[in-house]
Parts: sequence; structure tokens; C-alpha cells
Amino acid sequence: MGKWFDKFLSGCGFTVLVSDVDTELKATDLAESCQVVILAVPMDVFPEVVTQVAPAMAENGFLTDLCSLKEKQVACMLENSKCEVAGTHPLFGPGEKGIEGKRVALCPGRGHKWLKWWQGLLDEQGALTTIFSPEEHDRAMAWVQALNHFILLCLGKSLEEEEINIRHILELATPSFERQMNIVARLCLQDPKLYAAIQLDNPHSPKAIETFSRYAMELEGIVKRGDISSFLKMFNEVQQLGPTLLRHCRETG
Amino acid sequence: MGKWFDKFLSGCGFTVLVSDVDTELKATDLAESCQVVILAVPMDVFPEVVTQVAPAMAENGFLTDLCSLKEKQVACMLENSKCEVAGTHPLFGPGEKGIEGKRVALCPGRGHKWLKWWQGLLDEQGALTTIFSPEEHDRAMAWVQALNHFILLCLGKSLEEEEINIRHILELATPSFERQMNIVARLCLQDPKLYAAIQLDNPHSPKAIETFSRYAMELEGIVKRGDISSFLKMFNEVQQLGPTLLRHCRETG
Repeated sequence: MGKWFDKFLSGCGFTVLVSDVDTELKATDLAESCQVVILAVPMDVFPEVVTQVAPAMAENGFLTDLCSLKEKQVACMLENSKCEVAGTHPLFGPGEKGIEGKRVALCPGRGHKWLKWWQGLLDEQGALTTIFSPEEHDRAMAWVQALNHFILLCLGKSLEEEEINIRHILELATPSFERQMNIVARLCLQDPKLYAAIQLDNPHSPKAIETFSRYAMELEGIVKRGDISSFLKMFNEVQQLGPTLLRHCRETG
Repeated sequence: MGKWFDKFLSGCGFTVLVSDVDTELKATDLAESCQVVILAVPMDVFPEVVTQVAPAMAENGFLTDLCSLKEKQVACMLENSKCEVAGTHPLFGPGEKGIEGKRVALCPGRGHKWLKWWQGLLDEQGALTTIFSPEEHDRAMAWVQALNHFILLCLGKSLEEEEINIRHILELATPSFERQMNIVARLCLQDPKLYAAIQLDNPHSPKAIETFSRYAMELEGIVKRGDISSFLKMFNEVQQLGPTLLRHCRETG
């Protein structure tokens, strides 16, 4: 995502300096010479990088990051800096061509001037920005990412069962199942370590998973008992979510 | 789906007679005067309709159905008839405009002449037909439909939790989650009784659900223990399914 934002910001006319493990430019030198620093590093090395970069920044600068989680990350940036701070979570992957129509979550940390500039820039380029507290962000991500990935992984593992023939299953796919399989298939393009961090480092993940598991146990019981009236009740309740979901979700190809 | 096939077959140039609860034409009269009979009735009244229709058919006729399950249904048609029999499962809903590119499963019962004709007709119109035994069909459907709907229902119910704000969640949707939500949203267009039958009447459903639940328990443990190496192992295993899934699944808009 670092490379993606380099290209994006260069395209907007900004001068972008890049510091990485293999560049001559060191992170602290970059921090001293840039007004805005965007940290695009794996979550496991994030605190270490922040302790190097954040203290080197000018007080009137702006520090942000691209991590998938925000509570610990924004707190860490605040603790180690005196400049303006906000968290940025681009809700899309580096495979996307442009930012038009893509969601970006912003989490205020310290100051408003730079945050306003940053949100304005992203909006101007067509991003769909939303502002949430780091805690609200991570709580929602437990459902959007952790629970979603949890379900996809369990579904994927289930398809490996010996007693079933995956070819039969795919040849008999309904449109709904085919969509589901396309989502599972996209996991093969993703970074396992990022997915591990999203799942294991979010303190709200267990709550989302427990909630899902509770309904899974309930529905498993309904199926085994052949309890049609309880099934219909649950089905109708989920159907009532339809209009809300359709209002907020776009058909993504 | 009865109306859908009426329109489809009329469009192919056939004379289609329709018997329903509110038509003057009775099912037995229709069975006596048609070479091909397609039963498009809810699964709970299916056996009753078969016992009326099947014995009235000429021995050189063809009896098929459009049920989402096939083992009991094909057996029931065979038991009550002397004509050729095959099961038909159109793997799409009545909202689809045409049959081009849509999957249709065919399950042989008795005879080959009419089945060959039926498959030829569907293929000619662009359908993707596949032939499976009724037992293979229902076993696969436990995963394609029963398990898929099971997951969607539990995910939908999870979103109703008081502690989360569904608006936040949808505003922070990743493309993967947005796709998932679109699948859940489509449930509001479906017939609850059909979904109940697909879930509760397939003897293979519990096995598919148990398999999924076993992995859900395993992964829940991994998350709670923060066991990154087990998570990465599971993630890598699912990633290996990617090429197979991508080869068989089309991007459905």
C-alpha cells in the first residue's frame, strides 16, 4: 500500500520521498525533511518504526499510517510525537487502479488542520471517507474483516473434506455460492501475515466470532431437529436486514 | 420457476399447457395429453402431485421436475410412473432473464431418449448442463445451498447484535465484506419455505454443517489463543484452493 500511495500522491502533484529497508534515505532523515509522513509498514514492526520516526517530526507536521487496525496504532503515534496525528485505513487493496469510489476510514488523533487537509484531498480524488474514533473503527473491523475472514477460512477448509468432490460442488454452484467462492478465491492474493494480524490483534475479534458461533450452534440445532418454524423465524429476521444492506452496499463486480 | 419454464419453452416454439390450483385444466388431464410433463411445485406437496400426475402419463412420455433436491424426488417419480424420468435442478432463480450461461443439473431416473432430448434443448439455448446421480446431486447441494445459506443466516443474525452499529459496519465495508453483504441482502428476495426445505429436507445438510462448525471451533480456539502459526497454516491451506476455485467460478456481477 506504500507504493500505491506513492503513486497516488505523486499523481496529485506532491513530492514523495520513500524510505524503506533497502533505501539510502533513512526513516529519521525522511521524518525531518517532510511535512507529512505516511507509515506503511507491517503491523508487527509498526511500534518500532514509530519510535524512530515520530520524535523526529516537526511539531507542525502530520503523521498518519495505513494499518488495518487503529486503537493501538493511533495511541502509539500520539505517545511518540508532538505533531498532528490521525489514523488512515484504506478499505481496499493495492490491486485497485484508483481511489474513486473506494472507502477510506480516518481516525482523529491530535489536531484538525492536517486531518481536514488529508480528508479534503482524498475526497477531492473521489474517495468515500468516513471519520470514526479508533475504538469504533476496530470494533467495526472485528465484523467487517475478522469475522468475514473467519467465515471464509472455515468455508474453504470445509471444501477440503474427503467425502465431497470439489469439482461436483463447483459444477453445481448457484449464483450465490459462486459469489461466495469468488470471495474465498481472492484470499489467495492476500498477505497471510496481514490477515493474521487483522484476526489475532483486534481485541474485538473474539466477540464477533462468539456471536457468530452462538447463532451457528442455534441453527445447527434447528436443522438437526428439523424445526421448520424456528428456521422460518430466523430466515424472516435476516430478510428484514435486506433493505438496510441494499441501501449501503454497492454491487461490486 | 414454473412460469419461467412456460415462457422459456413457449419461446423455443413448444405448445405449453399449464395446470395449477386455479386453472380449469386439471393435472391428470394435462398428464394424459402431454408428451413431456415438468413438475414445478413446492417440495412439501410434491409427492401428492406425483401420485396424481405420474400414473396418468403415457409410457413413452417424459416426466421431470424442478425441485432443489433430487434423491426422494426422482425416487418418487420412478415409483409412481412407467414413463421416462429425470430430475432437473435449474441452479438459478426466476429473476434471470435467459438460460444463457446458467447451470442446470440433470439427474437420470429411467430411460435415455428423452433425457438426451432435454439436455440437448437446454444446451442449445446456452445452459450449462451437468449430469449427476440424484445422490451425488443432493450431497453436493448440502454444501452449495444448505451450508451456504446456513453461513449467510448466521452472519445476518450476527449483524443484529446490540453492541454494534450496522451503519458503522457498512460504512467501513471492504470490497470482500460488501460482496458478502450483497449475498446476504439477496436473501430478502427468496422464498423462506423453499430455503427451509433446502436446509431441513436434505439428509446431507447436517454433515456439511458439522464440518464447517468443526473448523469454526478450531479457528475460534486459534484466535483466542493468539496462535499465529496455526492461523498461518490454515490460511495457506485455504489459499491453495484458489486456483481450483478461480478455474471453475465465474465473476458473477
